Amino acid sequence: MSRILFSLLLVLSFTHAQDTLASWNDGTSKKNIITYVTSVTDPKSADFIPEVDRIAVFDNDGTLWSEQPAYFQLFFAMDRVKALASEHPEWKTTQPFKAVLEDDMNALMAGGTKGLLELVVATHTGMTDKEFDATVVEWINKAKHPRFNRLYKELVYQPMLELLTYLRANRFKTFIVSGGGIDFMRPFVSEVYGIPSEQIIGSMMEVAYENKEIIRKPKLASLDDKEVKPVNIHYHIGKRPVAAFGNSDGDFAMMEYTEANKKYKTLQLYVHHTDEEREWAYDRKSHIGKFDKGLDYGNEHNWTIVDMKNEWKVVYPFELKK
Amino acid sequence: MSRILFSLLLVLSFTHAQDTLASWNDGTSKKNIITYVTSVTDPKSADFIPEVDRIAVFDNDGTLWSEQPAYFQLFFAMDRVKALASEHPEWKTTQPFKAVLEDDMNALMAGGTKGLLELVVATHTGMTDKEFDATVVEWINKAKHPRFNRLYKELVYQPMLELLTYLRANRFKTFIVSGGGIDFMRPFVSEVYGIPSEQIIGSMMEVAYENKEIIRKPKLASLDDKEVKPVNIHYHIGKRPVAAFGNSDGDFAMMEYTEANKKYKTLQLYVHHTDEEREWAYDRKSHIGKFDKGLDYGNEHNWTIVDMKNEWKVVYPFELKK
Repeated sequence: MSRILFSLLLVLSFTHAQDTLASWNDGTSKKNIITYVTSVTDPKSADFIPEVDRIAVFDNDGTLWSEQPAYFQLFFAMDRVKALASEHPEWKTTQPFKAVLEDDMNALMAGGTKGLLELVVATHTGMTDKEFDATVVEWINKAKHPRFNRLYKELVYQPMLELLTYLRANRFKTFIVSGGGIDFMRPFVSEVYGIPSEQIIGSMMEVAYENKEIIRKPKLASLDDKEVKPVNIHYHIGKRPVAAFGNSDGDFAMMEYTEANKKYKTLQLYVHHTDEEREWAYDRKSHIGKFDKGLDYGNEHNWTIVDMKNEWKVVYPFELKK
Repeated sequence: MSRILFSLLLVLSFTHAQDTLASWNDGTSKKNIITYVTSVTDPKSADFIPEVDRIAVFDNDGTLWSEQPAYFQLFFAMDRVKALASEHPEWKTTQPFKAVLEDDMNALMAGGTKGLLELVVATHTGMTDKEFDATVVEWINKAKHPRFNRLYKELVYQPMLELLTYLRANRFKTFIVSGGGIDFMRPFVSEVYGIPSEQIIGSMMEVAYENKEIIRKPKLASLDDKEVKPVNIHYHIGKRPVAAFGNSDGDFAMMEYTEANKKYKTLQLYVHHTDEEREWAYDRKSHIGKFDKGLDYGNEHNWTIVDMKNEWKVVYPFELKK
């Protein structure tokens, strides 16, 4: 296609995408997204990607919804500990449960990954998949975030919802590839992001088939973070993605894997948390969502790095209703 | 809906489905399929299932294509051993490779599962996913079945292809859940059955992410058979299916799991290999595709059991071109 025609097409696409990406300020990130999608969906372009290979993968925590002051799934686990405490009198004196019951985040964090896994085992396993689903659904429709006093599922990013819609309108298949629990996400994520349960990938506890039911077992089967993200993409999708969206070094392997797609033009986008006022500002030194190696590499490799503060008109959907 | 209206709708559906299920003789199986699909897709029916929950799972070997005189993937592994033999002079004197090089199926089978796994490790691992894909693609487009002298991918069941199409036309999402290797199926199955790679579930070798590539490791990660089928359905799909299609006791757990769906009306269909002339006849005593417990249980539970010889007008697509 001639350069002039392509420019014309871009202008038309921009006009059309204005509505779809309404919460994105005109800027580098919005331009990169539209330029990429326009070029790979144009059958006459050398960069054209057939629909079956338009695989887009999204991290969840910090990429599609907030992850501060702690992963929302941790709040869920803590609320479950409190709900179940009367059946477990020993928790009053045993860590990490004691810390949860006393709302002592410092003591909880001091227990490290081992302590957090103990919380997950105690609250996420030993029941059928259906019983676990029910506890998640009840929580997600009731529990509120300490800072915003809003349901956790209201703390999704409006610009990213628009991006998901824009990609799907352009016949991309959108997947979640999260460090969060696959079974924690599935009961509500489909409704919130419009992504069906079979396109949700995440960390998994072992399950077994017993008496016609799926029973959740007290053992981690897969921690879907860092180098495990490409591995689980391979298992679940079986194709190298063409577009990857993340916010931290935990997403780096998935984005690097996508960038190394030799067959197609690719897009890598990092959400950079720069907005202390409307959301949070953190990167290189954060314990949650550490964004250091990826920030340097992304800048060197012309990845799209979204300056949340300056590029997003609104962060959360509820701001639109003000 | 009134009984009369439903009967009228059924007649109309039958007329329409006649074309789609053209290779099915009028009989119990065809009637069961159409009655089920008609009732669960009618928004006015008490049995209506929303599109997002129309999950249909299919075994592959013996259900969508033939599996005699041995699983086709075994022929692939044997052909790979022969192709790689010059690099492995020690194979001439070491089982199970010696048996393969001497075309001694008895000696090969005497080695049991352990021997077969050794073959798989030697031929399916130690390379990138892309390199493995290439060997599968080359083989599937060249190797021929010993009895029919046809490409293996020609030995798919025409009536089942029509059934897949019919279900998808009625907004079911079709998945493969096979004991065969997920990475053996993916390079050609999408094209043959119209099922995208992310809807193919099967046995998996371990993989790792190294140097921007997926590397296949010499260890089995999941043997997708019997009780593991519901487990992998849970991991990959995250929903209990409403329709399940198999042919052996290896599919029983998946079909029982589907039948135990308390929310929706379900369908279970077993392909019974009764046609020695056009395909093979085997069931209770077969080493491959043993169909014993499932046959009894299925009969007791009114599952649909397809009598291949009497209910299928043709078995393979190439018969249509005669």
